Amino acid sequence: MPKKIDINCDMGESFGNFKVGNDEAVMPYITSANVGCGFHGGDPVTMGRTVALAKQNGVGVGSHPALPDLMGFGRREMKITTEEARAYLLYQTGALKAFLETQGMKLQHVKPHGAFYTVLMKNEDLTRSAAGAILDLDKNLYWFMPVPNKSAEVASSLGVKVVGEMYVDMDYSPDGSLVVRREQFAHQLDPMSTAEKVIRFLDTGKVRTTEGTEIEIEAKSICVHGDTRNAADSLRAIRGELKEHGVEVTSIKNIA
Amino acid sequence: MPKKIDINCDMGESFGNFKVGNDEAVMPYITSANVGCGFHGGDPVTMGRTVALAKQNGVGVGSHPALPDLMGFGRREMKITTEEARAYLLYQTGALKAFLETQGMKLQHVKPHGAFYTVLMKNEDLTRSAAGAILDLDKNLYWFMPVPNKSAEVASSLGVKVVGEMYVDMDYSPDGSLVVRREQFAHQLDPMSTAEKVIRFLDTGKVRTTEGTEIEIEAKSICVHGDTRNAADSLRAIRGELKEHGVEVTSIKNIA
Amino acid sequence: MPKKIDINCDMGESFGNFKVGNDEAVMPYITSANVGCGFHGGDPVTMGRTVALAKQNGVGVGSHPALPDLMGFGRREMKITTEEARAYLLYQTGALKAFLETQGMKLQHVKPHGAFYTVLMKNEDLTRSAAGAILDLDKNLYWFMPVPNKSAEVASSLGVKVVGEMYVDMDYSPDGSLVVRREQFAHQLDPMSTAEKVIRFLDTGKVRTTEGTEIEIEAKSICVHGDTRNAADSLRAIRGELKEHGVEVTSIKNIA
Amino acid sequence: MPKKIDINCDMGESFGNFKVGNDEAVMPYITSANVGCGFHGGDPVTMGRTVALAKQNGVGVGSHPALPDLMGFGRREMKITTEEARAYLLYQTGALKAFLETQGMKLQHVKPHGAFYTVLMKNEDLTRSAAGAILDLDKNLYWFMPVPNKSAEVASSLGVKVVGEMYVDMDYSPDGSLVVRREQFAHQLDPMSTAEKVIRFLDTGKVRTTEGTEIEIEAKSICVHGDTRNAADSLRAIRGELKEHGVEVTSIKNIA
Repeated sequence: MPKKIDINCDMGESFGNFKVGNDEAVMPYITSANVGCGFHGGDPVTMGRTVALAKQNGVGVGSHPALPDLMGFGRREMKITTEEARAYLLYQTGALKAFLETQGMKLQHVKPHGAFYTVLMKNEDLTRSAAGAILDLDKNLYWFMPVPNKSAEVASSLGVKVVGEMYVDMDYSPDGSLVVRREQFAHQLDPMSTAEKVIRFLDTGKVRTTEGTEIEIEAKSICVHGDTRNAADSLRAIRGELKEHGVEVTSIKNIA
Repeated sequence: MPKKIDINCDMGESFGNFKVGNDEAVMPYITSANVGCGFHGGDPVTMGRTVALAKQNGVGVGSHPALPDLMGFGRREMKITTEEARAYLLYQTGALKAFLETQGMKLQHVKPHGAFYTVLMKNEDLTRSAAGAILDLDKNLYWFMPVPNKSAEVASSLGVKVVGEMYVDMDYSPDGSLVVRREQFAHQLDPMSTAEKVIRFLDTGKVRTTEGTEIEIEAKSICVHGDTRNAADSLRAIRGELKEHGVEVTSIKNIA
Repeated sequence: MPKKIDINCDMGESFGNFKVGNDEAVMPYITSANVGCGFHGGDPVTMGRTVALAKQNGVGVGSHPALPDLMGFGRREMKITTEEARAYLLYQTGALKAFLETQGMKLQHVKPHGAFYTVLMKNEDLTRSAAGAILDLDKNLYWFMPVPNKSAEVASSLGVKVVGEMYVDMDYSPDGSLVVRREQFAHQLDPMSTAEKVIRFLDTGKVRTTEGTEIEIEAKSICVHGDTRNAADSLRAIRGELKEHGVEVTSIKNIA
Repeated sequence: MPKKIDINCDMGESFGNFKVGNDEAVMPYITSANVGCGFHGGDPVTMGRTVALAKQNGVGVGSHPALPDLMGFGRREMKITTEEARAYLLYQTGALKAFLETQGMKLQHVKPHGAFYTVLMKNEDLTRSAAGAILDLDKNLYWFMPVPNKSAEVASSLGVKVVGEMYVDMDYSPDGSLVVRREQFAHQLDPMSTAEKVIRFLDTGKVRTTEGTEIEIEAKSICVHGDTRNAADSLRAIRGELKEHGVEVTSIKNIA
């Protein structure tokens, strides 16, 4: 079992009066925040407040760029070009960086959201394009994604610092990719079984797929979704179990 | 008559397949580009291309942030809060900065667009909020706006480097503010009379208002709008006249 | 005290994955639904579902058109033209009508949302424009709004069937207009005092203003907001009190 | 050669200040207008003006609904559900109907735009969903699309009045489907060769595919795109040739 682990969560996905999740309750339990950048959720005011909240809690901030699909919460695949993939990533990540800079903070990572993640994973040209954008912006940025997979290989070979994640509340396909659903997380997750799932992974390095098989994955961060009804409860349970097993929860900067 | 002058123009205001202006034709004649950032015009792909075009032409780049009103091209006043003014300016300017950073360029200035300019000018709290955002982002940024006026005073007193502009194709109110119209510039401007208007101002320091009176303004930059049908012709005429009168067209960095 | 009263509520204001209010819980208690039409809340899928839910509950349906401002939930005043006021009302109301027609239902009323209501009330030309749009679409449509006021007079004089409303959860200005706030209803309303407020109005014909004075208003419908946390509780209390006092809750068609 | 033919063209695809095509020049030459409904182009004000222009010219009006992708001008495929396909079609078509009703006009047809057409054609469930929406709205509506193909069969079998079209300025795949490109029509079409292409089709019933083969298609309407630079010139040439060959250009109502 590893000695240290990062915990990341999507934050700042509210849009104007439309509220998503409970960032104030969740932020104290995580070490990395993937902040919505306006294309699927997250408006400028929300972004400013979310960055301030992350700072208060000493949480590392990454961008959570999406396809331009507010109506579909960025969970519908769109046919985009490599130029669009690059430009959407830069636009949204740059917007977030401005809020970080005014707070004296540095951007820590990039984590494409929902269907943007899916289309990048499915197409090597798009992966290369996104990787190029990340490197051109800042060579020290981490790219959070499931590992291993072809995209991770490509991005790593180009020089991107890829950080593998383990998802506690999403389903794995047998090839290790994630199943992105349109309406996620209305259900409650059982905090204790979620925590046990994390420990089992840390112990064995394996997760179960939708077909019942087990696959090996690499992960230095645990991803929990903030829009599950009881995300804070799950996080409390996970942190309890991690403490029990002597695993320190700390920023990816101290691990990767 | 001054020895040097900057020429700025709105660029990159196309949105996807919707084309605005003729940036390729105009860019060679200007020294500062105010680049659309997505809220009134300018999508991520257009922004990337516009920044590259500015680099090729050695043109300084500023952000041209707007109210979130694509349907109204950012020309309708909206009742916004100081938090929104700050956040909209940071979001859009940050998005543009990312494209500049990947090109090894630095952001030169900020110039609020259309009704965003209008609401900032009309309300001192909003002016302060925008000024704070600019200073927090980068103390070396210029804020392009009409001078003199109350907002310019406030922004200067807070430490913002205010650069006055002279508008060749917009109407002045007797108080020195600009009349923002919803549908501008469908008409042709006569290049020669436009050029003469510039020379007259440089000579006298005065412009004519909608009421026929003359007012003194301060300007180290001339603003020409790129969505006039024959913007390139006007710019050619202006540059011809400036040369004739021994005025060098050069970046604001060499003047302010 | 009147024998009959209609109860209206904003419904269908969710946008994609962004959920607003609890329509399933509220719909059984109301007789008229003001359905979001996409500009401030309400996407096409939500509209179809909301219309079906209204049909199941025998609730009359009206459009709830807004200014094009999803980011501000339609609660920010914008400077629009009479042509825009007319076109925005027609576009959104027509979109809703299509869903009603496929269900064999008829549009009952129009009720402009938030800042669209505010700008229409403040400007007689805009009132006339909206009234003309309503009449051109269908002379039998009701226009729900606070009465008395100048706009109600103008609309009535043009032939629009104006229905006055009493608001249980919004503040009245001394001139009878409503105070539209950006972030409403995060607080709980006390169901019993809300119900008493309704009875008091029905008894006296008066409501209290923000300045503590009382003004007379005319209302054949009671407006309750569905995005208050406990809207269903308030509605249950109101209906209990109305029953107690022998007031029948029935569709505006049976009253106006 | 047929005695009569309809000519349809996309109209009203401007969005606010963003101008597309030259509707005033084109409208006099066509008999059916496919009017943009806001999701890819066409805002409420533009829709009202376009309907009025069609009325002046005695042109039949259909809706031109799109996927919600203004940034991509509705030309990027998105993964949508059957409920979304139905709702998007109803919302946009209903919005247009309101403008028609205020002008005393009736909706004539529906023609899905760009990638909405593509995704409907590729998936029988989506075709059924769109067909159901059209029938539920009005059994007399025509659905304009390329014929023959599987979708046309399905829609016809459900009772939709399908009208086949011949495209003068788009490429045919060997299976008869159209190649939707992201940036179309910047180039000029040669008016005379366009007109000859129409005559050749009317004479032989065949068009050429991207692979050089010829396929038979059925068409009672000719589709010309209004955003080609010289659409009016092409239309003039086409109408000249049709007159020459004794083919009357008349509304689909007089043909189908």
